[in-house]
Amino acid sequence: MVVTLASDNYGKSEIRLVKVVRDGARHFLHDYTVAVRCEGAFASAHVDGDNSAVLPTDTMKNTVYAFARLHDVIPPERFAARLAEHFLDASPEATRATVEIAVRGWHRLDVGGRAHDTAFERGSDEARVCAVADTRDGAAVVEAGVRDLVVLRTAGSAFSGYPRDQYTTLKETRDRILATAVSARWRYDRAVADPDAAFAAARQALVATFANHPSESVQHTLFAMGAAVLAAVDAVAEIRLSLPNMHHLLVDLSPFKLDNPNEVFVATTEPFGLIEATVARGA
Amino acid sequence: MVVTLASDNYGKSEIRLVKVVRDGARHFLHDYTVAVRCEGAFASAHVDGDNSAVLPTDTMKNTVYAFARLHDVIPPERFAARLAEHFLDASPEATRATVEIAVRGWHRLDVGGRAHDTAFERGSDEARVCAVADTRDGAAVVEAGVRDLVVLRTAGSAFSGYPRDQYTTLKETRDRILATAVSARWRYDRAVADPDAAFAAARQALVATFANHPSESVQHTLFAMGAAVLAAVDAVAEIRLSLPNMHHLLVDLSPFKLDNPNEVFVATTEPFGLIEATVARGA
Amino acid sequence: MVVTLASDNYGKSEIRLVKVVRDGARHFLHDYTVAVRCEGAFASAHVDGDNSAVLPTDTMKNTVYAFARLHDVIPPERFAARLAEHFLDASPEATRATVEIAVRGWHRLDVGGRAHDTAFERGSDEARVCAVADTRDGAAVVEAGVRDLVVLRTAGSAFSGYPRDQYTTLKETRDRILATAVSARWRYDRAVADPDAAFAAARQALVATFANHPSESVQHTLFAMGAAVLAAVDAVAEIRLSLPNMHHLLVDLSPFKLDNPNEVFVATTEPFGLIEATVARGA
Amino acid sequence: MVVTLASDNYGKSEIRLVKVVRDGARHFLHDYTVAVRCEGAFASAHVDGDNSAVLPTDTMKNTVYAFARLHDVIPPERFAARLAEHFLDASPEATRATVEIAVRGWHRLDVGGRAHDTAFERGSDEARVCAVADTRDGAAVVEAGVRDLVVLRTAGSAFSGYPRDQYTTLKETRDRILATAVSARWRYDRAVADPDAAFAAARQALVATFANHPSESVQHTLFAMGAAVLAAVDAVAEIRLSLPNMHHLLVDLSPFKLDNPNEVFVATTEPFGLIEATVARGA
Repeated sequence: MVVTLASDNYGKSEIRLVKVVRDGARHFLHDYTVAVRCEGAFASAHVDGDNSAVLPTDTMKNTVYAFARLHDVIPPERFAARLAEHFLDASPEATRATVEIAVRGWHRLDVGGRAHDTAFERGSDEARVCAVADTRDGAAVVEAGVRDLVVLRTAGSAFSGYPRDQYTTLKETRDRILATAVSARWRYDRAVADPDAAFAAARQALVATFANHPSESVQHTLFAMGAAVLAAVDAVAEIRLSLPNMHHLLVDLSPFKLDNPNEVFVATTEPFGLIEATVARGA
Repeated sequence: MVVTLASDNYGKSEIRLVKVVRDGARHFLHDYTVAVRCEGAFASAHVDGDNSAVLPTDTMKNTVYAFARLHDVIPPERFAARLAEHFLDASPEATRATVEIAVRGWHRLDVGGRAHDTAFERGSDEARVCAVADTRDGAAVVEAGVRDLVVLRTAGSAFSGYPRDQYTTLKETRDRILATAVSARWRYDRAVADPDAAFAAARQALVATFANHPSESVQHTLFAMGAAVLAAVDAVAEIRLSLPNMHHLLVDLSPFKLDNPNEVFVATTEPFGLIEATVARGA
Repeated sequence: MVVTLASDNYGKSEIRLVKVVRDGARHFLHDYTVAVRCEGAFASAHVDGDNSAVLPTDTMKNTVYAFARLHDVIPPERFAARLAEHFLDASPEATRATVEIAVRGWHRLDVGGRAHDTAFERGSDEARVCAVADTRDGAAVVEAGVRDLVVLRTAGSAFSGYPRDQYTTLKETRDRILATAVSARWRYDRAVADPDAAFAAARQALVATFANHPSESVQHTLFAMGAAVLAAVDAVAEIRLSLPNMHHLLVDLSPFKLDNPNEVFVATTEPFGLIEATVARGA
Repeated sequence: MVVTLASDNYGKSEIRLVKVVRDGARHFLHDYTVAVRCEGAFASAHVDGDNSAVLPTDTMKNTVYAFARLHDVIPPERFAARLAEHFLDASPEATRATVEIAVRGWHRLDVGGRAHDTAFERGSDEARVCAVADTRDGAAVVEAGVRDLVVLRTAGSAFSGYPRDQYTTLKETRDRILATAVSARWRYDRAVADPDAAFAAARQALVATFANHPSESVQHTLFAMGAAVLAAVDAVAEIRLSLPNMHHLLVDLSPFKLDNPNEVFVATTEPFGLIEATVARGA
């Protein structure tokens, strides 16, 4: 029997990096989770057990920490690009090096009505993410996005007009809670001068559309959210959205002789709907 | 052999309740996780399999949802008290009924610089908690607190002067990151007219002290945080704090010929220190 | 205002220890998660920031690893006792030192029908636990138990005869799935020569009773499980059981013109019943 | 601006199904987590909010439960195929319907040395998985695999001969703990008469190779594991493996004047190496 290595990649995941930057008495906190991944001509490692081309993942980890001392870590897209470029140099057999960063938010503690200089509270589970994939020929591919941005709206969301069969029990509604944990990832097709501004504009397009779109379904609002990001940021070529439908079920209070005018819900975790699509420019 | 039931309790946990309250176009969102627990003379259920005194936990769950329709759910202490009182009525054999509520925060979405009327984003993992334990004789015991309030400070925290033995490798420091997930629970010894205001004052005392206390250790700051709550809210008789020490380790960059002036840290999840104490009034 | 330290404890949690013991070609794997906790006269640390009595939790961690090299780690009760005794010596201000160990199971890989000498697969989430609390006067208190032992039975479990009120919707049943994640912890009131044998006998009593007891409720079976452990192991003085009721709901298939003779269930995670009791010797 | 729907899919995830099958006094337990996913011509739902082609995910869920009553659920590949075929019928606009099943293991409780007829304990987190993707033209694509199979070996694993640079601190070793959580998924290129036997043979190939392969690296052993599956099961066309390297770090006991002859390790969860590859037939 002849077998072959059809594709492969390896790297280090979940490198936890916290960098404190001081500007006089005011400190800034950067909380990153970094993943490094290399692809390339690593067949001899797989087939023959020859590690001469395998930059250890432990070295990848060390490099991330050393670079955090040597370089600015913001914006994350730039730090990722610098690392990806380095790993192509450090690993001659690699044809592509990808660095992904998830940024967790911390907010300054409000102490006596004033934002504190050196004390912070952790924000929500939302993470700003980016991924830079560098190769030896041509420009790096830069993606950015957001993960676990949990949003909920209590008005303007419907689901009706769907097909019915013998297994249908769902009731049509013109007024339901719509809740989801937004995962969105978009690809830039050109250099972005200010990644922070591009991210902020894209995120605002996502949440404004989620809040205001007259929603006939998750699909309907997903598409509108994607289109809004494309409209807001010229450099975005396409965007992929993954929206779990975090069901909030209206509680049937009729056994207790009570109505329930969209007031009392049970929040459920499973099962959940999952709606995914990629929205791009062009007809 | 003779065996006996030394103590027992039962109830329903993780009842997920979301209530939407509408004030014209403006909606309010209340996200509660409720637990109900009864203690009492339930030996016949245990020993004889006689369920005639066992109010089903399914009924407890139904009652929570029905009460959410019938009554205001804010402040949570009052909703919990109403439920606890009901369960004493509904379960004649119960000698104590306890209702605990964890409140998760949602913030209005910022859309175009304005807080949206009907769209929200979920906040951090922090939960405001309360527990009301009612009995047939005397007043209910009311506790309030906070859980998973993750805070971090980058200045004014030391750990030095500790004993050394043959297993000591830790380096003394006058400047470290101090991070923890605050769990605090305090007991009121009198009726509190405005539980929301009492909670806000206690929480502010916790975070202000965490941020500003000249810290010689987690123990040192824990005690100061507890004392600050007792100073801020007269009705608090005692407070229990549980503070995991979420270690942020300074990365040793010397193998790479780099210094690390308290800039680059690795955030770790395990192992962690755990510091707990109860602070009360009196000498 | 005068405030006081009413109680306190501190230590290190989630110390992950894996020890490999070799008997010729045959290896043995011990996977422990250890927690150390000291209580005592630590008020000066809390009140004054004086660390001179505070054995660092980092030193506790180091000590666990060093002791794992110096000593046998089995049975875990003995390793915990040795550590607890040491921490009383190492921390003169401590009045009580407690060491808890959770043991995770690994099974030898079945390779060609034979248990492998040096390769293992991880077992279920069940952990054998023990806790030894040592003080300066008198014998250490030794507890043992089990955690996250998830069991399910499909026959011989009922729930009926319970009180009904206006919030009751639950249907009585003489045949349901009963599933729980057993947490049990028992205290020995005398020295146990063979802790492994005592644990095995207690665990067998738990599972045999869970499997065979004619169950009228979780309470009913909980008590029988506790009594069975007391009957099986003389040295057990009392046992505390915590049994979440992991509800498996019969799916209503009647909308699809189908019956459901206890065949098709939905497994739910929340809400869940929670039944807890302590069973002891004596009338 | 013109935007377009580049791709899309939707469905229901985490449908929790437990089926009890009775053969006289002996019961069998099937614990499935099912996901349904449809792809197709759903642009009008996204772009226009027209739900006339959108079979609700709630109906998908109902169908899974109804089919569990109407049909055998074993082997899971057959149940998945039946459902996928149905969803193509029920959703005329779908061009592909995919049903994935994760099977969790339960073992009969050992009661007095005998496997119990109706009582079970849950096994490890390992899940047998399968995915059937059906289309209107041609045969369904059937994949099978395993997830979260955590294995560890204490002998015969090395990592040396790798390149060094200024960020290298890792020490070469000819003897280390190798641990991973195997995720493997293989595709059949023909009908498989006995999916259970094929799965068992593939799983045995995976674990036997993991246990016995003279390992120069995770990559090296990954490739051997993939090749072994291809050798063991003719119908497997290719296999994708994802192996996190669950690092067990040798504890440096030299500060305590102790050696550590590969005996005492700290198990870490983050960061971790991640090694992935696809192994296929052919040169």
